[in-house]
Formats: sequence, structure tokens, C-alpha cells
Amino acid sequence: MARVVVDVMLKPEILDPQGQAVASALPRLGVDDVTSVRIGRRIEIEFAGEPDLDRAREIADKLLANPVIEDFALHIAEGDSQESQPAEAPA
Amino acid sequence: MARVVVDVMLKPEILDPQGQAVASALPRLGVDDVTSVRIGRRIEIEFAGEPDLDRAREIADKLLANPVIEDFALHIAEGDSQESQPAEAPA
Repeated sequence: MARVVVDVMLKPEILDPQGQAVASALPRLGVDDVTSVRIGRRIEIEFAGEPDLDRAREIADKLLANPVIEDFALHIAEGDSQESQPAEAPA
Repeated sequence: MARVVVDVMLKPEILDPQGQAVASALPRLGVDDVTSVRIGRRIEIEFAGEPDLDRAREIADKLLANPVIEDFALHIAEGDSQESQPAEAPA
């Protein structure tokens, strides 16, 4: 199963109120050393055959990202899913 | 600038209507070899000092992901931004 991952993030000069809301909630959790939080999208595109980066770039450009306010980056994902470092439930 | 990236995706057994909408729009773009599209979130957390994976995992668990329907994975990002493979505008 070949998978291309597209990461879409707001351009650095665009305000991210959702990320700011998370950042301003952190002191209540006792976290004081975070300087910024930015929230974007991660899209996993699964191809039937070979993963096709050029095709994926076209999809990202036309359907997934708004090039006026967003940047995107693509890479081919190896392995089963995003779980390269599975999230363990904290004790 | 130390940055931890949290990738939050719906669990595989949870329906993703947003991804399905993208997948069903692809044939109109002439793309027929995509079997599935899943859309999740990518969160970049910037730490003032050392990137702290345990702290980031706590933030993800409490603020960023809904553990009932979502999985998350963390990794430390090297370099400047998500732009490991910058998106070029297609000709």
C-alpha cells in the first residue's frame, strides 16, 4: 500500500487563531516553555500502485491547499500508518 | 528553535467524510489510482529550549487529540519548517 503524505500549513505570515488558542491554554497545564503552536492539516493519499508524487502534488495544489494562505509539502510514507512512534497512554 | 510535530489522524475504523469527499472528487481531475484519502491534523509545537517529547505527548493527549476517535504520533522536526520538500507551483 503506497501512501503519499501531504502536510498543509498556514504560511508563516498568516495568523493562526486556533494554534494561538492552544498556546494560550498551555500555561494552565503547567507548560511554560512553548513559544508557538501552529495547526495545519495532514492528508494521507493512498495509491493503488506506485505512489506518484507529481500526481499527489497536483491533487494538493488543486484540492487540498489554498495557495494564497497555505504552503504544502509532500513525502512518501513508509510503513503501515502514521504510527512511527505510537502514542502511549500516559500513566 | 526546537519543534515537535504532532500528527493526529482519525483511527482507521472511524469514517472520514472529508477524505471521502476529496477521494470522490479525484476522478474529475483524471486521477483514477487513488484508493483512499484520509485527512487529519498536523500540529507544530515550538519550544523555547530543548524540544520535550514527553511534554508534547501530554499536550497532545490533553488538548490536541480526542483519544476516543483519534490516534496521534509525535516526532521532533529538524530544519526550518515543514518545507523539507517545498511545493513548486506546477507549470
